[in-house]
Amino acid sequence: MPARTPLDANAILAATEEILRRHGPDKATVVDVARTLGVSHAAVYKHFPSKQALREAVTRRWLDRSRDALAVIAADSAVPPAQRLRTWLHAVLAGKQAKIREDPELFAAYAILAAAHSGVATDHVTDLLGQLTAIVADGAADGSLPTDDAQATARVVFNATAKFHHLGHAAEWQNPGIVTELDEVCTLLLQGLHAPTSP
Amino acid sequence: MPARTPLDANAILAATEEILRRHGPDKATVVDVARTLGVSHAAVYKHFPSKQALREAVTRRWLDRSRDALAVIAADSAVPPAQRLRTWLHAVLAGKQAKIREDPELFAAYAILAAAHSGVATDHVTDLLGQLTAIVADGAADGSLPTDDAQATARVVFNATAKFHHLGHAAEWQNPGIVTELDEVCTLLLQGLHAPTSP
Repeated sequence: MPARTPLDANAILAATEEILRRHGPDKATVVDVARTLGVSHAAVYKHFPSKQALREAVTRRWLDRSRDALAVIAADSAVPPAQRLRTWLHAVLAGKQAKIREDPELFAAYAILAAAHSGVATDHVTDLLGQLTAIVADGAADGSLPTDDAQATARVVFNATAKFHHLGHAAEWQNPGIVTELDEVCTLLLQGLHAPTSP
Repeated sequence: MPARTPLDANAILAATEEILRRHGPDKATVVDVARTLGVSHAAVYKHFPSKQALREAVTRRWLDRSRDALAVIAADSAVPPAQRLRTWLHAVLAGKQAKIREDPELFAAYAILAAAHSGVATDHVTDLLGQLTAIVADGAADGSLPTDDAQATARVVFNATAKFHHLGHAAEWQNPGIVTELDEVCTLLLQGLHAPTSP
């Protein structure tokens, strides 16, 4: 819609995210958000018809920011694909560890949506798998990650690293050995892919 | 203790397991078990001082039965170690799928204990890791799974297959593609271990 006032969807989501972060998910209702922005409920409802829609949108926006940060790593053709695959997997884990530490309220909202098989969570996984596929495809192209099906290979690598990105393991991400464990798994997988295991 | 009556710990646990299975965890109290066995509460309390102790013991006994079945596979020296590793990982998954399907009440009791980091759950993981280590050690001995640290290698394989044995993934074990996914991961890991990937 043409923005005649500063109240666009993004402003609503930024306010919702801030409320979530400060006061927890129970306070992030349409009424709370409208009050914070000094607008009518109707103005917010026009963009987000329910608290659920608002929560999904704010979580999606939050996840999309991590996705975009990871996309930069996935697309960095200056880094050889095998090394890039390892760096990217470490960045996925580091990003989730940081989210739990710094954004526990938004992480909790994400975990709830994931448990409910919300499209927000499945889309995020699809996005990550797409990035991993792009890295493997780069390796297939230059011969460093030999495969004739980059997508299938990426899926195997993603499945074999579930401990380091699947929400069911969130409690384990604070274990002191977790980064070493991921690195060991990466080395074994890269060996399996007949790829160089170090730069 | 010398059994002057048929009421030993095993009889209590068998009755508790049956009650759990038929009526769910809420009915598996010391009182219910004593009533089923036709003995006094005190007779049961002598072996298990609380409902929690009873639940832990019955879950441990149930898990130990799967552990023992898997131990037969792990120790089957007629099967080459690489193939045995793959067969064992498939048996772990198949066992968990069967448990969810056939013993949902006991599986739920196990999931609760695991979430609470009960020794029952961590001991079970230690037992499984020990079996996997024994398979890898057999492969190290005959040169088919080259490694100078069987325990470390087993841990990496266990971490890389978390999707197929960690309770956080239980919902995914009913997906139609899950067995194929495990097989693909096994193949990649065996390649990484420089092991034969088929019999």
